[in-house]
Amino acid sequence: MSDEAVWMKWIEDGTVTTPLGFKCGAVYAGLKTPGPGKLDVGLLLADVPCSAAGVFTTNKVAAAPVVLSRERVRGGAARGIVFNAGNANAATGEQGMQRARQMAEVAGAKFGVSPEELLVASTGVIGVPLPIDRFEEGMGRLTIRADGGHDAAQCIITTDTRRKETAVEVAVEGGSFKIGAIAKGAGMIHPNMATMFCFVTTDAAVEPGFLNTALRRSVDLSFNMISIDGDMSTNDTAVVFASGMAGLPRIEAGSQAAERFQATLTEVCIRMAKAIAADGEGATKLIEVRVDGAESEDDARRAARSVAASNLLKAAVYGGDPNWGRIACAAGYSGANLVESKLDITIAGFPTLLQGKVLPFDARAASSALMQSKVTILVNLNLGKGSATAWGCDLTEEYVVINSKYTT
Amino acid sequence: MSDEAVWMKWIEDGTVTTPLGFKCGAVYAGLKTPGPGKLDVGLLLADVPCSAAGVFTTNKVAAAPVVLSRERVRGGAARGIVFNAGNANAATGEQGMQRARQMAEVAGAKFGVSPEELLVASTGVIGVPLPIDRFEEGMGRLTIRADGGHDAAQCIITTDTRRKETAVEVAVEGGSFKIGAIAKGAGMIHPNMATMFCFVTTDAAVEPGFLNTALRRSVDLSFNMISIDGDMSTNDTAVVFASGMAGLPRIEAGSQAAERFQATLTEVCIRMAKAIAADGEGATKLIEVRVDGAESEDDARRAARSVAASNLLKAAVYGGDPNWGRIACAAGYSGANLVESKLDITIAGFPTLLQGKVLPFDARAASSALMQSKVTILVNLNLGKGSATAWGCDLTEEYVVINSKYTT
Repeated sequence: MSDEAVWMKWIEDGTVTTPLGFKCGAVYAGLKTPGPGKLDVGLLLADVPCSAAGVFTTNKVAAAPVVLSRERVRGGAARGIVFNAGNANAATGEQGMQRARQMAEVAGAKFGVSPEELLVASTGVIGVPLPIDRFEEGMGRLTIRADGGHDAAQCIITTDTRRKETAVEVAVEGGSFKIGAIAKGAGMIHPNMATMFCFVTTDAAVEPGFLNTALRRSVDLSFNMISIDGDMSTNDTAVVFASGMAGLPRIEAGSQAAERFQATLTEVCIRMAKAIAADGEGATKLIEVRVDGAESEDDARRAARSVAASNLLKAAVYGGDPNWGRIACAAGYSGANLVESKLDITIAGFPTLLQGKVLPFDARAASSALMQSKVTILVNLNLGKGSATAWGCDLTEEYVVINSKYTT
Repeated sequence: MSDEAVWMKWIEDGTVTTPLGFKCGAVYAGLKTPGPGKLDVGLLLADVPCSAAGVFTTNKVAAAPVVLSRERVRGGAARGIVFNAGNANAATGEQGMQRARQMAEVAGAKFGVSPEELLVASTGVIGVPLPIDRFEEGMGRLTIRADGGHDAAQCIITTDTRRKETAVEVAVEGGSFKIGAIAKGAGMIHPNMATMFCFVTTDAAVEPGFLNTALRRSVDLSFNMISIDGDMSTNDTAVVFASGMAGLPRIEAGSQAAERFQATLTEVCIRMAKAIAADGEGATKLIEVRVDGAESEDDARRAARSVAASNLLKAAVYGGDPNWGRIACAAGYSGANLVESKLDITIAGFPTLLQGKVLPFDARAASSALMQSKVTILVNLNLGKGSATAWGCDLTEEYVVINSKYTT
C-alpha cells in the first residue's frame, strides 16, 4: 500500500492485546512435550461483548473446536477464544465435541463469562483424546493481562520457530483505532496439511455483517494465498473480535472508515501469512510469487499458488538454482489460461523468459540472488489484467526430518 | 486380476521389443552428462506400419516433441518413435519445433521411413536449445536390433535409478499376442512436475479407434493415478504401437479379445506406473492407497490421489510413523464426499480408524510394518461403491538434495 504512511502506522512490538479492551494469558499444562518457556493452554478475552467473525477450514474432517466455534460465531458476536496446542482434538468424535465445550465452560466459569460467548481452537496431534484434566488444571492457574498477547502468541505455536504477532494503528475521522493479531504457522507452508491460526482483535466498533465480509476478503488475499484452493487442515481458524473500545462510531460497509478497516485488515493478514510462509517447517527463505497479466483474478490466483506450491521449484530455490523452467511448468498446469509465446518470467530480479523466449542471464549472479532470505518471482501472462500474489517457502532436507517423526 | 494366470503370462526379461515386429537402438551422443553406460539418443521402429495412439501432457506449456507427436498420431498410424534424454526441447519456441521435426527427418532418412511416420519424445532440461548436431552425430552411429529394448529403456531414464520394462503374453482364440513396454519415471512421483514416458508395443492387430480408447482408459487407471488430476509436465508421453505381426484377426471394440487387450494394457501400464512411483527421486518405498466405499469412482480417485500425494503422509511413511491422522486429513480436503463418523483407515495392515473411531493399535509394530518396501493404505469411506487405487512414494531428504541442484 503506497500511501500507508498517511493513515496507517505499524506499532512496534504490537500484538493481539494492543487494541483496547483485550486481555490474554497462557500457562503450560503438559499438552505439549515439556521444554523451557513452553505454554500450551491460553485465553484471549475481551473486557466487553464484541462483534466477531470467523473463517474456518473447509476440510470435511473438521476438528471439534472448529465445529463448535463455527456454530458459536454465526450470530456475529463473541467474547473471546480459549485455545491449546499439543492436541488438535480432531477425529475425536462426540467425546471431542464434549471436551471442546468443556474447555469453554471451564474458562467461562473462571472468568465470569458465558461459555457460549467463547470460541475454541486446538492444534497438535490428530486422533488422540484431549487430556481435559490437564487443560482444567492449567486453566485453574491461568491469569489474563492487558500485555498478555506475547504469551498467547507463544502458546499457539507448535513447530514454528518464532512468534507471529503484529499491531497497527489506523487514523480515521475523529480519531484512530487499532488492529492486532497473533498467528501460528502451518507446520507446512500449505495450510492444507497442518494447522493455521490467526486471532485478530480491533478496538474499532464494527457492524458484524461487514466484519464477516471483510474477514473473508482479507483471508482470501492472505492465508488462502499460502494454500492450495480449498485445501485446509482439520483445524484452520481465523477469527476477529471488535471491542469498540476506541470510542469511535460503528464502522458500516460503504464508509471511508470501512475501506480503511478492510485495507488494514488485509495488510495485517498478509503480514501474518508471510510470517507463516517464511517460517514453514525447515524453511530458509520466503518465496513471493506475483502473477500479472492473467485473464482474470482467479486465473492469477491459480497460477501464483501453483508456482508457490511446486515442490520442484521450492527445492530449486533452496539450492539457489534459477530453474525458471519449473516456474513455466507449474504455471502451465495451474489451470490458468497461458500462451507460451507470451510468457514473461523474472526470477530474483533476473529476467529469464520474455514473450516465451529464453533470455541469456548470469546464472551465477542469479544463484547468489536466490540465496537471499526473500526471493521474488514475477510471472506476466500478458493476456489480461488479472493480478495476484502468493507466498511460499523453500523445501529443505530439514522439512523431511521434521515431518518423518511427528507422532512417534 | 485374479484370473490372470488363465490367459495372461508375464514374460521374464520382457521389454518393448518382445512383441514381434519391433526393433530398438540407442547411443550416447553427449546430451546427458557423461557417465559409464549412458545412452541418450534412441529409436523404436516397427518393421511395418502400425496402428498407433498417444496420450500427452495437458500442460499449457507443452514441449515441441509433444506438439509434433500429438499431431502426427492423430490419424491413428505411426511407425515408431525417436527419442532423447538430457534435453526436454521445451519452452524452446519455433526453433524447438524445427529441431523436433529434424530429429524425425534424420532418423527417417537413415532407416528409410517417412519422417511423418515417426513420433518424437524428449526429456531433460527445459528451456535450453536441443543440440541438434550432437543428436545427428549420434543417430548416424545408431543401429537397431530386435533385442534392443533394454538399451531403449536405459536411454530414456534420467534420475531414475533403474530401467522400467515389461512384457506379457495374452492367449486369445486362435493364438496369442504380446504387449511390451518401457517407461521412464517422473523425477518426482507426481508426473505434474517432471516427465513421464511410456512406450508400449504389441504384435496384436488393433483397430486404431479402439486402440486410442483403450490407451486412454489404461492411462487413467495407471499413470493418472500417480498424478494430480490434469497436472502433468511439459513432456509427458504415453504411446502405443500395434504391429499386427502376431498374425491374428484385427481386434475391434466389443470382442473378447478386445476385453483381454484392454485389461492387459491396463496391467502393463499399472506395472510401469508402480515402477515409476517406487523409483521416485530419493524414494525408499512404494505407497499404495486404495479407497473403497466412495460415492463415485471419481470421488474414490480424488481421495486416493490426495492421500498418495500428501507431502506430510509421504514424510511420515519415510520415517515409519503410522500417522493415520494425515490420511484422514488428506482424504478430507480431496474434494471427495466424506463423513468422518463413517471413515475406516487401515495402514500397513493395522486398522487405526473404524467408523470414525480411533482403534488402539501397536504403534511399534505398525512402525516396523511401515519400514517395508511397499506400504499399503486402505481407506473405506463407507458411502457407496466407488473404488480406486493410487500410488506414490515416500518423501526423503534425498529428494530435496536431488532437486535443489538440477540445472546448475
